[in-house]
Amino acid sequence: MSTDARTPEPPYWAVIFSSRRSITDPDEYAAAATRMVELASQQDGFLGVESARASDGFGITVSYWRDREAIAAWRRHDEHRIVRERGRQAWYEQFQVRIACVERAYERTQEDG
Amino acid sequence: MSTDARTPEPPYWAVIFSSRRSITDPDEYAAAATRMVELASQQDGFLGVESARASDGFGITVSYWRDREAIAAWRRHDEHRIVRERGRQAWYEQFQVRIACVERAYERTQEDG
Repeated sequence: MSTDARTPEPPYWAVIFSSRRSITDPDEYAAAATRMVELASQQDGFLGVESARASDGFGITVSYWRDREAIAAWRRHDEHRIVRERGRQAWYEQFQVRIACVERAYERTQEDG
Repeated sequence: MSTDARTPEPPYWAVIFSSRRSITDPDEYAAAATRMVELASQQDGFLGVESARASDGFGITVSYWRDREAIAAWRRHDEHRIVRERGRQAWYEQFQVRIACVERAYERTQEDG
């Protein structure tokens, strides 16, 4: 997964999740990661997600949300809670979560010349 | 590069840079990326940086800063400006920059059990 998220004009919110993968369960992990993106994108207030993981196991996923309430609701989602717990136990050697308010944003595409 | 940044208690600031690399100049790009991390880490107000790029060319770098003034000063840095301009012209097919205030953070390491 990757993709550049098409977010609206700020302000909106970001959840920055940086993690180091363990070598456990690559297939189970990949299926769960795909499912979580699918599920997140169905939630009210979801704006987009970007993700990159390098070959050394370190990865960053940033999901974007309309407001803090949308983030809180997603954290309470039952299936998400179960998968988070599984991640905590098995998939990550280490992770950090940061919740941030995006106040400014700009982009550049090839078409800008 | 990767590393989990040892940031202080919030609030502090994050610059979320997500990009898709072109295939141009891999060696020049790698040298410049290393140099920019070295230079950023010498700036007043720099708190840390995390970066991951997947094999498909999509990457996310998040740098952390004490306040907006530190981010603005780094943007004005002469060598950084020159390298940014080179990146804009040659190294990225597309990028987005988001400036965000981190309001909450938590982490988990293997030692937490």
